[in-house]
Amino acid sequence: MRVSFDEMQGEFERVLIKKGLNAELAKINAVLFTQNSLDGIYSHGLNRFPRVMEYIDKGYIDVNAVAECECGFGALERWNGNMGMGPSNAKLCMGRAVELANKFGIGCVALARTNHWMRGGAYGLLAADMGCVGICFTNTMPNMPAWGAIDNRIGNNPFIIAIPRADGMHFMLDMAVSQYAYGTIEKAARDGKMLPVVGGYDKDGNLTNDPNLLWESRRVLPVGFWKGSCMSMVLDLLAAGLSQGNTVQDIGNLPAEIACSQMFIAIAPDKCGDPEYLGKVTDDTIEFVKASTAESENGAIYYPNEISYITRADNLAHGIPADEEFWGMVKAM
Amino acid sequence: MRVSFDEMQGEFERVLIKKGLNAELAKINAVLFTQNSLDGIYSHGLNRFPRVMEYIDKGYIDVNAVAECECGFGALERWNGNMGMGPSNAKLCMGRAVELANKFGIGCVALARTNHWMRGGAYGLLAADMGCVGICFTNTMPNMPAWGAIDNRIGNNPFIIAIPRADGMHFMLDMAVSQYAYGTIEKAARDGKMLPVVGGYDKDGNLTNDPNLLWESRRVLPVGFWKGSCMSMVLDLLAAGLSQGNTVQDIGNLPAEIACSQMFIAIAPDKCGDPEYLGKVTDDTIEFVKASTAESENGAIYYPNEISYITRADNLAHGIPADEEFWGMVKAM
Repeated sequence: MRVSFDEMQGEFERVLIKKGLNAELAKINAVLFTQNSLDGIYSHGLNRFPRVMEYIDKGYIDVNAVAECECGFGALERWNGNMGMGPSNAKLCMGRAVELANKFGIGCVALARTNHWMRGGAYGLLAADMGCVGICFTNTMPNMPAWGAIDNRIGNNPFIIAIPRADGMHFMLDMAVSQYAYGTIEKAARDGKMLPVVGGYDKDGNLTNDPNLLWESRRVLPVGFWKGSCMSMVLDLLAAGLSQGNTVQDIGNLPAEIACSQMFIAIAPDKCGDPEYLGKVTDDTIEFVKASTAESENGAIYYPNEISYITRADNLAHGIPADEEFWGMVKAM
Repeated sequence: MRVSFDEMQGEFERVLIKKGLNAELAKINAVLFTQNSLDGIYSHGLNRFPRVMEYIDKGYIDVNAVAECECGFGALERWNGNMGMGPSNAKLCMGRAVELANKFGIGCVALARTNHWMRGGAYGLLAADMGCVGICFTNTMPNMPAWGAIDNRIGNNPFIIAIPRADGMHFMLDMAVSQYAYGTIEKAARDGKMLPVVGGYDKDGNLTNDPNLLWESRRVLPVGFWKGSCMSMVLDLLAAGLSQGNTVQDIGNLPAEIACSQMFIAIAPDKCGDPEYLGKVTDDTIEFVKASTAESENGAIYYPNEISYITRADNLAHGIPADEEFWGMVKAM
């Protein structure tokens, strides 16, 4: 089934108000959840909404708490998320990083004690919509083994870099540092499909692209094997260390994936010289890379985040595809 | 054979002065080349030195040119490398980023028209030695296909994040966004060894870890398949777009891998709150991750850059291993 943007946002808003959020926070968060589904990131839109409501019911989230600045030094600030809603906290902090960037060329906000931001790319796009480069990352619970290990002691810590484009079709890297999300592995198992490339090790330590074996072993691979393992740790330490918040290890001791640490960096590309230069090289490079020889006859090469704009256009025209189970849960709340 | 640090540095300095560098620049660059070999990064120390000398002979490098600031806006500066030596230019710009970080909390220098910096990690360590987080990346020539493509239109753009530790054993990610360097593939082929994990596609489009097939196809893999492909492009666009320099595409039109674009970001972790916090969580996380269950009986888990410190200690005690062919070339220059 397909649901219009306004209807989905309205339902989220209604439920959030029922859960105790004030009207302003309910709206900000409802819009962010809906935008994620609109862009095709269903796993962090509608499909995740019920779990966040469960976390509210359990008292993990302080619904009307808002992130506050605890310390500032020039272009660098340290904020405390006060255990508030993750999406609205992240939006606030990326907005602040953009303000700092407009004043200092670059701005950085480190945020402690916040909650899951859903789609990290939402905050990259936010910076890009304001004309800035947006860089952000978050830590997570321990959900991946370090390179050479079998038990989960590092996070898949999503990492985002967005580059603004004049037409609003921003260029964006939005990656977790695991090769596959557990959601992707679970879906492949349900659909009876092999993963396109290896995603981890089976219980006997053999690389495999069989989702059932990965689901059983929980030994998922970092991107680039040893490289993603290092990347995971360094992102965790920056976010936790600069925000004076929880590390991946600390989050592993909590009852759920809550009280995360995040970083938001914005760069204003129009302050030093030709304000059009970044946009020009971005357009040129997209054209150059898309003109590559494709590996299959009808293959296409997409620029980062292009597919999400194609999905957005389709979903705006025809409504947002809604999983009936999750939509039913929200309607019944 | 093993060569002492002082002897290797002295030889590099002698040759650089012969090539026309002034005494100060000759020393800075000689030390950086020697430190790379000292830390076990032979490919970007001694083994690369002759090729850099060849580039000087060909007139690709302006030996006494030094990077200059063209524009500054608060914590963000745009520099022109003036086609000078890559290592000394990179050192200067990371040093400047640290100065900006000490003034503004975070500092960023975008550098255009510079040359190969050798080991990118050298500049991460430089920032860390000054108590700052150091982040830097460079673009390269097109040496990797984008995801879904077969011709090389993106770069393997190394990406570095260093976190300072009080004992000087800094925590550092230093990765190219290709799974393997061509140097690693060539060495495995020469040694008759398979690569430990898949490194790219053979000519028929099958994933392979056979170095001979990869050397033939030139279709190396980005880290994380589609993810590294996106990461490559975004790092290129940031470095080129913010420095107003060459993109990977532009460098592909030059006679060699010269006139690159680079970014240097430093963050001062001691300006907002507890100055010990970052070091504490870094030590704690290293301990936690190293205590993982290893996948093999005598397996060890290393923190990022740990192995390079082990190598450094050994090379300081016993001399730096020198490839006789390359060392002979340098001695004869």
